[in-house]
Order: sequence, then structure tokens, then C-alpha cells
Amino acid sequence: MEHDTIAAISTPIGEGAIAIVRLSGEQAIAIADSVYRGRKPLAEVGSHTIHYGKIYDEEVERDVEEVMVSVMRTPKTFTREDVVEINCHGGLMSVNRVLELILSKGARLAEPGEFTKRAFLNGRIDLSQAEAVMDMIRAKTDKAMNVAMGQMEGRLSQLVQKLRQMLLEMIAHVEVNIDYPEYDAEEVTHQLLIKQSETIKDEIEKLLITSKQGKILREGIATAIIGRPNVGKSSLLNSLVHENKAIVTDIPGTTRDIIEEYVNVRGVPLQLVDTAGIRETEDIVERIGVERSRKVLKEADLILFLLNNNEPLSVEDKGLFDAIKGMNAIIIINKTDLESHIDLDEVNTYAEGRPVITTSLLKEEGIDQLEEAIASLFYETGIEANDLTYVSNVRHISLLKQAKQAIGDAMLSIEEGLPIDMAQIDIRRTWEILGEIVGDTVSDSLIDQLFSQFCLGK
Amino acid sequence: MEHDTIAAISTPIGEGAIAIVRLSGEQAIAIADSVYRGRKPLAEVGSHTIHYGKIYDEEVERDVEEVMVSVMRTPKTFTREDVVEINCHGGLMSVNRVLELILSKGARLAEPGEFTKRAFLNGRIDLSQAEAVMDMIRAKTDKAMNVAMGQMEGRLSQLVQKLRQMLLEMIAHVEVNIDYPEYDAEEVTHQLLIKQSETIKDEIEKLLITSKQGKILREGIATAIIGRPNVGKSSLLNSLVHENKAIVTDIPGTTRDIIEEYVNVRGVPLQLVDTAGIRETEDIVERIGVERSRKVLKEADLILFLLNNNEPLSVEDKGLFDAIKGMNAIIIINKTDLESHIDLDEVNTYAEGRPVITTSLLKEEGIDQLEEAIASLFYETGIEANDLTYVSNVRHISLLKQAKQAIGDAMLSIEEGLPIDMAQIDIRRTWEILGEIVGDTVSDSLIDQLFSQFCLGK
Repeated sequence: MEHDTIAAISTPIGEGAIAIVRLSGEQAIAIADSVYRGRKPLAEVGSHTIHYGKIYDEEVERDVEEVMVSVMRTPKTFTREDVVEINCHGGLMSVNRVLELILSKGARLAEPGEFTKRAFLNGRIDLSQAEAVMDMIRAKTDKAMNVAMGQMEGRLSQLVQKLRQMLLEMIAHVEVNIDYPEYDAEEVTHQLLIKQSETIKDEIEKLLITSKQGKILREGIATAIIGRPNVGKSSLLNSLVHENKAIVTDIPGTTRDIIEEYVNVRGVPLQLVDTAGIRETEDIVERIGVERSRKVLKEADLILFLLNNNEPLSVEDKGLFDAIKGMNAIIIINKTDLESHIDLDEVNTYAEGRPVITTSLLKEEGIDQLEEAIASLFYETGIEANDLTYVSNVRHISLLKQAKQAIGDAMLSIEEGLPIDMAQIDIRRTWEILGEIVGDTVSDSLIDQLFSQFCLGK
Repeated sequence: MEHDTIAAISTPIGEGAIAIVRLSGEQAIAIADSVYRGRKPLAEVGSHTIHYGKIYDEEVERDVEEVMVSVMRTPKTFTREDVVEINCHGGLMSVNRVLELILSKGARLAEPGEFTKRAFLNGRIDLSQAEAVMDMIRAKTDKAMNVAMGQMEGRLSQLVQKLRQMLLEMIAHVEVNIDYPEYDAEEVTHQLLIKQSETIKDEIEKLLITSKQGKILREGIATAIIGRPNVGKSSLLNSLVHENKAIVTDIPGTTRDIIEEYVNVRGVPLQLVDTAGIRETEDIVERIGVERSRKVLKEADLILFLLNNNEPLSVEDKGLFDAIKGMNAIIIINKTDLESHIDLDEVNTYAEGRPVITTSLLKEEGIDQLEEAIASLFYETGIEANDLTYVSNVRHISLLKQAKQAIGDAMLSIEEGLPIDMAQIDIRRTWEILGEIVGDTVSDSLIDQLFSQFCLGK
């Protein structure tokens, strides 16, 4: 447990109605008191109460802000430490000035995610719950928020801890068997271990089934729109953006200089790749060059490939079919308002079983069917229950895959009749890998790295 | 007094650690309760207390956010109405979802500034204090914040109300004189009125003396950097920005598409005009054309005009001197690291008494002197006391000038021996004009217009 007192601005940077300086730590209340002037000192007020007052700057001998201060005492706080939130009028300068005063009184500027890190280190939440906090902030759709909320409430943690408890019991059982072989026939132990391992493997597999959808909900489907010049790429982009709620992410102060555009198609977040390119030149391939467009295609989870109903398949079209071989794609025959010169059978052959949709973007026809096709790609596994625990985080997915492998290894060594302490190693490894999800068995450097991706003041 | 319940997001738009949905009005607590699930209903909690809980969405039958809710009951609140602040994890989607839920339960989306407007309409603050709230948010320097803070605390209001009280007493006196001329010799009344009018006029003039500085503190000095190509404009810009704290204002979601850049030179905020132009091409005049550069010059309060020490004054230089005739300017002879070919006497002649500074921006020499010269332009009136009440708002300055005129008219008609009810009209007019500053005698449409300039959620 770290004991110094940290402080940061916890609201987004910008002019707004409210800006908050948050403090956490043993000295949080004392430090706040050293700049606060109100009806009575914060040291004397009850927990979870709000107080009007002024922030006083000794150096210039004057009040510099009018504030509402919230005092929350340990342990029922976000960090489990004493927490003070100073609620300022939302100016950039004023909140910075209050923060500077607080820092001059002995608080340390918090690192990104350090408040949540303390919540984790002080045992209020586990690592997967902490990660869900950030997912919640970054969520692009309601569904993604639901996944984050479920994880924040500890659904994934409970499942993982249940499995770890089973593994612990298996380990205990094996240890008894090793130390006192007379109490337990090896054969019986073997059968028990196989049975329990299978249960655990099944549970992990069930979780992994949700991971594809979970990852999509969390990160969106990276979607590229391709096709020859003038086939309607920018019309498609516009109709997707206008028909649906566009979510444009542009966060000042972060290092991202690409503006990603998200559209919410029936609850499925599409992250449109290189929309700037399409908007500017109507032709992604021409503008960015073959090299870059290959990269765009490679990064895409879904290709929307536009063809021209009014012309036969061209050499270029066939080249693009070649480029997206084996990839997740929807083929869109656009311009059905014009005479048909395209050979539908030929298109279907090239489509290789992938959906083929006809549209007239000009007449706004066929867009419903396209959205249906996009949504059904997501819902194809047939599961989308409200109560399902989605695994959405790449780190968790990777750990679950490793855990599945490890428990499989344990089963294999038991089945092959290897000495039981060999299986014991794999069982313990499974327990450790699952522990990394909730943060019980995770290294300090990984923790630092995970929290550094948080935003300031969280 | 309006009675419906309003709600808005009160934190800046963007990903952050905390986002707040604020409610105000008679139904604020009831509406919050309809979506809140915590240990007990908010209706039952004390005023100025904070409560952990979840926001529940009936429609999807699940919790959608984890929140801390602050309950503040009338009358000791920002608006003097019941106020609830729902403190969410700072995501764009999540705070929007909470706001939508609140609106679906019967709250109305607040207009910009509507919370502060209610604080004004419900008599908690007067109009000049309300305006100071927005000045506080927009302040670019500590000094500007101090001015706003003083105004927010009611310094200007108290002065104005004192003058209005005096005017009211004068009006009463005159009315007695008109109704009961036998009680008071007209001559005595005249002398009394003249004396009191003079006091009032003096006080108004004292306030107006601070207005030039006040306006600069509030809005910054619009500063243009001009000079021939390659004379060092972009070096000057960079050294001003790097030596000092640059304040870049870029507010997503507002209509402003120009990024203004502020630098804080010894407490004086310079608002650098067309910095993008200088950065991009090194030559503002060439890039934006003569027409536009004239406009830039016209809008500038201060010109920083760079000359090249290494070359004699050129025709272009003389043309620029012509363009800035009579304007506030500092002439900077740059490149003192190179041999001097410029005629200093000639420059001084063209400078017409305006300060001439020599610099080597390359060697970082002379920048101190330049900053000194900029600061002294601001402090030239010789007043800069901490306790001074600055008038910074253009609306207030204009009203004070009108009031000065009106009380002057009253004095004139008394001196000219006109019937006393003529002076009475001017005295009443002065009282009304001063009333507009604090909002006692202001029209509804002006109030609407003033508050519409506030940010959302304030």
C-alpha cells in the first residue's frame, strides 16, 4: 500500500461548467484544508458530505476560486483511501491553479490511472474490474457499455475465481495423494482430476465462445470500404454515417492524431478505416497507393466491396476479389437504378459464399439489407443473451486460451499415465494464468503498463 | 421563477475520469430517484450528502452505470433549487446514456447557462456576478481570474449598488422638493444635487479608469506579428510561446474553428492573431493577401513589427510603417548578430515615438527587453493594485459610460437652472442604467442573450 497523497484533474480538458481536482491518500483532507476556507475545516466534517467554500492562495493573499468540496473518508471510497473532490468553475486556468496550489501543499501529481490502481492495490476491485472501468469510458455503443458494466460488477471475476477455487482443490487433492498415497488410490485420483479438468476446460471454452463478439463490442469491427473509382464508396460511407449514429472520437491531449469514425449498425460498432481517404479523393487505392491499401485491407475485420451493376466485372474488380480472398467481406452490387451489365453468376462465383447484396445508394435502396447482413455477421453464433458474460479484452482472451492449453496439457499427462506431479505442474500453471486475469498473480510491471493506458485523473 | 426540472452534462465533452449530469428543479430528486438504485432512496437522504449506487435502465432491465450521486436541497445550492449531480465514469457514451434516461423521466434538457440563469432569477447572484462566472471559466491568466473572482464575489455589484442607493436618495429628495416646495429652498436642493452628482460621476470615472486594463485582462491583447519574409516572425512567435506559458484554446463542440493562441507575458495575456498563417508560410502578407492582412492589422490591439538589422529599410518596410500609422506598435530590429546596415535614426523617425527594441532571436538576446516593453504598455497607467475593482466587461464599460453621460446631463440641467423635474429624469435614467449592470432593470431578451453565451451545463 502506497501512502503518499496524489492529486489530478479528473474532468476532460476544455471549457466546461464543472472541473474537478481529485485527491486521494492519508493527507488528502489535510492538504485540501490548507487551501480551503469554508464554514468549518474539512477535518471536522462527516464523510460523504459536500461543502461550499473558497480556495485561498496565501502567496497573493486572496481567494482564487469558489468551490464545492466533497469529502469521502476511508474505506468507503473509490480508492479505499481518504478522497477529496474539489469541484471548480470549469475553466482551464482556474482548475490548473487549484491543482498547482494542491501540489504546492505536498500532494504528488497522480500518474494516469493511479486512482484506479490504488482501488486495485487496496483490494476494492480486481484487475479485470479495473480494466472494465476504462472499457466503460471508451465504450462506443450501449452493448459495449453493458459488457463493461457486467465486467465492472465482477461477473468475469466471479467465474474466474470459481475456476481457480476448483483448481486449488485439485492441487490440494494431488498433494494429499503424493504425501499420503495410502489414503487414495491413484486410479481414483486420476479419474477425479480428469473429470474436474474437463469441467474447467468446458467453462473456459464457453467463455472463449463469447470472445469474438466481446472483442467486436469492445473495439468495433474494423471495416474497409473498397471498390473502383466512382462505384459509390463515399455514398456508402455517408449513408452509413447518416443513417446511423456516428461516433467521432477526437480526444485533445492524447497522442492519437487519427480521427476514427464509428457507426453503430444495429448495436454493432463499425470502426470505419481510412474514412478521411475516402472522403477526400473518392478513391482509397489511388490516393494512398497499393502498399498502404494492402495494409488497410490487412487491418480490416470486414470488407465492404462495391461493384458497379452498370458494368461487367473489370480486371480491377477481379484484382480486388483476389486481394480479399478468404477475408470477411460483403459484396455490394451498387447502382441498381442503372441498367444491369454485371454477370451475377460470375459475382457469386468470386464471392465464394460470402453475402452478395444489391443496392441503389442513389435511391437509398438496399441499405436495410446491407445492415442486416452486417448485423448477422456479428450475431451468426446465435448467442446474444443479456446475461452472458462476454470476454472482450484481448489480454483476457489470450490468457483464457493459454489456460485452456495448460489444463489440456494436465489432462494429457494424466491420460498418458505420467507421474501425477507432472499434471500438478500444469494444474498450478492453469491456476496462475487465470490469476493474471483478476490480477492475483500478475507482475508489477504488467500492472504499471495496464494502468498507464488509463486517462489522467482516473 | 421557473419550476420545471432541467438537466445537462456539466463536464467538458471528451474522454475523462469523471463526467457529471446535473439536475436542478422541484423534481430533481424524484427524477434522479427514478433511475437510481442505492442503499436508500435519494428522497430520504440529507442535504449536501454523497451516495454510491447504480443507474438502472428499466427498458433493458439492467444497471448501466456505477455512480456517485450528490444531493443538495434548496435553498443552499447553486440555483437555489434542489440540485442533484450524478457523477459517472467519464465516458462519452455512458454520460449520454445517463442523461437520456434522466430526460426520459421528465427532465428538460437545459439551455446553455440555464443553471446560472436560475441562480440569477432566484436572486442568489446578480447579473454582473453571473457574468463573472463565465469570465472565470474563460480566463486566460491568473490576473484575469482575479478580476473575475472579485466580480463574482460582488465587488462591482456593491459599488454599483452604493451609487444606485445615492441616486435613489437624490430622487426622493427631489420628489419631496417638488411636492412640498415649502420645506426646502430650491437653491439648497440644487447645491446638494450638484454635489452628490459630482461624487457619483467621480466614482464612475474611477471605475472607467480600470476598464482599459480590465478589458485587456479579460480578452487579451490581440497581437499581430508583421514584417518582410525571413525577418524572424516565426522565431519571434516560437520564442514568445516557448518562453511563456502558451495557452491554446481548442474547444470541441463549439462553432469556433479558429484556434487562438494565447501567451502570458508577465501577466499580460497576448492573443496572437493568425499564428497558423505565420507558422505555415513564414509570411503572413504573402499567404493571406493584402486585403486580409489589412483586416488582421485592423483587428490587432498591438503590432509587433520586425525589421532586419542586416539590411537598410526597404520600400516594403516603409509600406508596413505606413500601414500601422497611429497604431499601438513595438518596432523590433532583429538579427543584431549580423552586421548592422539599418539606419537607426531613420527607424526612430518612422517609429514616431513608439518603442524600438533590438533583438537577436537566433541568439535569444533582447527578448527580456521586448517583454518589458509589452508589459509596460499594459501597466502604463501606473495602477495595478490588488484591491482595485476592475471593470472588464464591454457591456459594463458601455453602461458606465452611458451612466457618466446621464449624470453629467443632470448636472448640466441643474446648472442651467432648468426645472428640477428635468434633472430628475436624468437622475432616474442614471439609476436605471446602473441597474442594468447588476440586472435589476434589464430586459428579458438581454438576459436570454447573455446567458446563451454560457457553456452547456453551467
